Amino acid sequence: MIIVLRPDATKSDADALLDKIEAAGLKPLYMPGSERTVLGALGDERVLGTLHLENHPLVESVTPVLAPYKLVSREMRPHDTLVDLNGVTVGGEQFVVIAGPCAVESYEQTRTTAEAVKAAGARAMRGGAYKPRTSPYSFQGLGEEGLEILDRVAGEVGLPAVTEVVEVADVEQVEAHASAFQVGARNMQNFRLLKKLGQSRLPVILKRGMAAKVDDLLMAAEYILSEGNPNVILCERGIKTFETATRNTLDLNAIPYLKAKSHLPVVVDPSHGTGIREFVAPMAKAAVACGADGLLIEVHCDPSVALSDGQQSLYPEQFAQLMRELEPFVAAAGRTL
Amino acid sequence: MIIVLRPDATKSDADALLDKIEAAGLKPLYMPGSERTVLGALGDERVLGTLHLENHPLVESVTPVLAPYKLVSREMRPHDTLVDLNGVTVGGEQFVVIAGPCAVESYEQTRTTAEAVKAAGARAMRGGAYKPRTSPYSFQGLGEEGLEILDRVAGEVGLPAVTEVVEVADVEQVEAHASAFQVGARNMQNFRLLKKLGQSRLPVILKRGMAAKVDDLLMAAEYILSEGNPNVILCERGIKTFETATRNTLDLNAIPYLKAKSHLPVVVDPSHGTGIREFVAPMAKAAVACGADGLLIEVHCDPSVALSDGQQSLYPEQFAQLMRELEPFVAAAGRTL
Amino acid sequence: MIIVLRPDATKSDADALLDKIEAAGLKPLYMPGSERTVLGALGDERVLGTLHLENHPLVESVTPVLAPYKLVSREMRPHDTLVDLNGVTVGGEQFVVIAGPCAVESYEQTRTTAEAVKAAGARAMRGGAYKPRTSPYSFQGLGEEGLEILDRVAGEVGLPAVTEVVEVADVEQVEAHASAFQVGARNMQNFRLLKKLGQSRLPVILKRGMAAKVDDLLMAAEYILSEGNPNVILCERGIKTFETATRNTLDLNAIPYLKAKSHLPVVVDPSHGTGIREFVAPMAKAAVACGADGLLIEVHCDPSVALSDGQQSLYPEQFAQLMRELEPFVAAAGRTL
Amino acid sequence: MIIVLRPDATKSDADALLDKIEAAGLKPLYMPGSERTVLGALGDERVLGTLHLENHPLVESVTPVLAPYKLVSREMRPHDTLVDLNGVTVGGEQFVVIAGPCAVESYEQTRTTAEAVKAAGARAMRGGAYKPRTSPYSFQGLGEEGLEILDRVAGEVGLPAVTEVVEVADVEQVEAHASAFQVGARNMQNFRLLKKLGQSRLPVILKRGMAAKVDDLLMAAEYILSEGNPNVILCERGIKTFETATRNTLDLNAIPYLKAKSHLPVVVDPSHGTGIREFVAPMAKAAVACGADGLLIEVHCDPSVALSDGQQSLYPEQFAQLMRELEPFVAAAGRTL
Repeated sequence: MIIVLRPDATKSDADALLDKIEAAGLKPLYMPGSERTVLGALGDERVLGTLHLENHPLVESVTPVLAPYKLVSREMRPHDTLVDLNGVTVGGEQFVVIAGPCAVESYEQTRTTAEAVKAAGARAMRGGAYKPRTSPYSFQGLGEEGLEILDRVAGEVGLPAVTEVVEVADVEQVEAHASAFQVGARNMQNFRLLKKLGQSRLPVILKRGMAAKVDDLLMAAEYILSEGNPNVILCERGIKTFETATRNTLDLNAIPYLKAKSHLPVVVDPSHGTGIREFVAPMAKAAVACGADGLLIEVHCDPSVALSDGQQSLYPEQFAQLMRELEPFVAAAGRTL
Repeated sequence: MIIVLRPDATKSDADALLDKIEAAGLKPLYMPGSERTVLGALGDERVLGTLHLENHPLVESVTPVLAPYKLVSREMRPHDTLVDLNGVTVGGEQFVVIAGPCAVESYEQTRTTAEAVKAAGARAMRGGAYKPRTSPYSFQGLGEEGLEILDRVAGEVGLPAVTEVVEVADVEQVEAHASAFQVGARNMQNFRLLKKLGQSRLPVILKRGMAAKVDDLLMAAEYILSEGNPNVILCERGIKTFETATRNTLDLNAIPYLKAKSHLPVVVDPSHGTGIREFVAPMAKAAVACGADGLLIEVHCDPSVALSDGQQSLYPEQFAQLMRELEPFVAAAGRTL
Repeated sequence: MIIVLRPDATKSDADALLDKIEAAGLKPLYMPGSERTVLGALGDERVLGTLHLENHPLVESVTPVLAPYKLVSREMRPHDTLVDLNGVTVGGEQFVVIAGPCAVESYEQTRTTAEAVKAAGARAMRGGAYKPRTSPYSFQGLGEEGLEILDRVAGEVGLPAVTEVVEVADVEQVEAHASAFQVGARNMQNFRLLKKLGQSRLPVILKRGMAAKVDDLLMAAEYILSEGNPNVILCERGIKTFETATRNTLDLNAIPYLKAKSHLPVVVDPSHGTGIREFVAPMAKAAVACGADGLLIEVHCDPSVALSDGQQSLYPEQFAQLMRELEPFVAAAGRTL
Repeated sequence: MIIVLRPDATKSDADALLDKIEAAGLKPLYMPGSERTVLGALGDERVLGTLHLENHPLVESVTPVLAPYKLVSREMRPHDTLVDLNGVTVGGEQFVVIAGPCAVESYEQTRTTAEAVKAAGARAMRGGAYKPRTSPYSFQGLGEEGLEILDRVAGEVGLPAVTEVVEVADVEQVEAHASAFQVGARNMQNFRLLKKLGQSRLPVILKRGMAAKVDDLLMAAEYILSEGNPNVILCERGIKTFETATRNTLDLNAIPYLKAKSHLPVVVDPSHGTGIREFVAPMAKAAVACGADGLLIEVHCDPSVALSDGQQSLYPEQFAQLMRELEPFVAAAGRTL
């Protein structure tokens, strides 16, 4: 950690801070310059965090040398983590496409869609029972009934099912019905929920928040791993920027960054990332090309009557075409679909 | 609602959509142009929402005419809402300053700080027992013990206390100990929590999310009002932008916008909004000047040892000076401090 | 154009506005609703722009129905524009990689780099003589001497050369030495420069500004086309967002959007887009996959001593490897390298 | 400057870098840690910039200790700079309001508006002759004719006039007709223009770019000062964010930051900052309260027929009311209007 002092800090101010650093078991460094004095503190920066040097009125800035995350970092664990999604491995040689409706609306809709995505090559299905919606007047999901439909269809069709969990109180119920939890963008920093999911061993697909830096996403994953659950899949799904041509700005730069910094698998959600049906296919291909381990795609048996996110959901035939078009890109990336 | 059709939409496509609009009890309008056909649908746009016209493959765009919120809007209720914070009225002639530590760390620290802010003129106190922190290795708050300390100090010092609630399961406990709930930026779209708070009658200070448009904040407030709790205070606390000179970008433009669109009181948190101690005072004055109803200020009896947000917390003497400096600005705004 | 009136607008206010619309030769529409009156104006929206209806105190909002650009739009010209870069066609079946140093630093450096990128398969070279730099104390480019070096090397190596123009007064000089103008992100809305370039017939690579929406980029291109130069190549190079892990946020969503809305070719600059050497290759592949027509890549014969942008410049062997790795992705996209 | 090496850097890599640092006349520091080696370089960081240590493949990050600007910094010159705007001092005890139309449209419109703003208390007038417009089909300003009208009206009414310059070739002409140059947001990093203005002694009002950090604005001002012109006035006018309720996000946090870091005067443009007539007054008051030295306000004798920016221009009577309402805030800030 590098501590820059304000111009008016004296030698004795510096000494007092150096004593604090040493008392915390770290190696202190004193670097007087012509315009500023710089201090160093070498060692475990988490210990240093407890010193709160940034609070000091004579400290101008504190810059960490090491990343704030540990368990999720590739330095800690150089080899890729493989996450087992009820028989489907995410993070390995196979590129995994997870597809299905935004929301479970009925048994028929879920079953029809699930069959279509399986026939086209999806390895897992998705469908929300609890839907966070901007407006209280919008469809909020079927709740427990939705979970039961999802569970039944997953069994009948033979696909692992992923579904969103929005609340600590629902964790056990969701765990009983799904093969993986999904944590939505709005809950990426719902730390109580993350800790609870850390006590499960079911995989967690953790979506990046709309205002979250990629390092914030890694810190959120750190919450889950630090509670004991190593089965985390990171998901890029678009951030908020000034651009309004797309619903969000899918930030594919995050993929090589996350793969470089962390051993966790990374998937991409181009449906939410762009919010526009026509752009899902090109961005899905781009996700393959820049190193993603899989995709999360919204497909609906009839998007024109979907109760949520219809304008970004693919028609089943569009999804089938996307899967055919993805194939050579997946091969170019040295993987299989 | 204005529906623009794609160039390849035919007259019979338009007719089919107009029939849907009419069947939903709305007044349809047909406006053929040389390059695009435009449809209108006049009436309650919430009904229209259930038609999901934006999903249709031949619809290019759907633009609402009316705001998506109802209960929070000034059109619905032209007069300012006054929220009673255990005897202190927010939204009226008095400008209300709520001050205290980021986190309750101990009885001593809370008591000392509370006395200082009361002596300087604060009308209510703040202090977190449940702290959402980016890192799992940071101080997470004292939990229930913190609530009890806060409650005890509030009673001893004679100030209403505001504290953050992060989880549905904690709502009753927090309600038993505090005069108002605070919903943090990370939970602004924790809709389950909002609904639960809507069933209370205790005031809710609702902070704007870091990626939330002001209209999203109003929609979040709508969740609380639609469940029956009218006592909502909106809070601007900074958004995420490309600027890194400040921790967040305090968006004071939101104040006149929120006051124009809604009848709810609006307060400003310049401590989180800037993240830098020196900038709290100028931005607090600016908040007064652009029409805010109050402030939320972090003060700590000794920021240099604060367990969270020390670098943005004021020393007690700085807070006292801020209150003195605020006075002529509050008077210029035609209010009292 | 859809004009929503404020709630306090009367029937006679509406009539006055409808008269203005009709007098401008457009078809007026009157749509009274229960909460708002909506007016329509059908016809050429550019004519409508001169009415400045948005200025009227009783107008709440004005929403255009048509895109603000004409000449660059695919509706105007459905077929892809092919731009001839001194014998190299951009926008057709061949995927075009343009590579070279950020800045021309010397004849040796330029020649060595140009030979390396040509050997690896680049179809054109780049190199800046006029460098816009954030700091006045940074290297500002060699100016005219740089242009002459670039011109000489381009001839010797046999590659068309692209170089940045920053000022109207330099246009003729640059035109004499290069095969294409590059307009940098900071000059995307230097409208005087755009108009001047519109009077040339040399191709213009127009980079998206750091705060520019994709529609702003199309409007900037419209300036060039409206002056008579149809040879514009759009370039995505990253926008400013809150994310700091990368220098900019390369917005690949822009590629399918621009290809859908415009007939102009689109290239991607992953070097500026990410600012980090390691991420250039994955984002270059992603650009191919989502439909770009080419790439602009910074390569330096020895990045460790580059006078600008060294940290994002590829070593020649990295560039050669990138070209080999790109090949299967280009083939998957149905194109040749 | 603090240089963090990658984990795979060896002692001899570090030594080579330390030699480079020493050879450049700086004091090198070696700080080996358990996970990373950190190097320091103490001395003039501008010299260090020429070493381009960030380019090195074994360097993970380079963090400057000192600000990149010199001449504009308060450390260099602790006392406030006062800029003389043809008899009106900006940056001193008087709060200076500069008002007028977005564009000079005619002699009548300019004269009427100038008289109105002078009567209401404005100390200088504004009016654009060269208008950068997003669309080539919008009004582009009257050019030289506009400058002549502005000059004539300024003389008749007795107010210094400020006008935008967009191009090096126009600098002399503008200098002949105006009391100060204005550099618009789109030209903040038109470095050639900045250098040219640095050779004048006429004041320059430098507007912050829409994607510019406040430190970028200071670096742009450094260009002007480094060429010899000390008369720079910084102007905050809103940045691009995800928020669409206002045209831009006026970032008032920039005011205390700029006043702390620099000795230059700072003014605020709430007209462009919000883009909405109703929000100009509250944000103008907020600008006073947080420490601005003046305001730039768009006023038009009849905004409903303005050729540009009508929806954000005040009616003369609104401006007069704003000036009356500003007065107590200016007094609260310890200044005079």
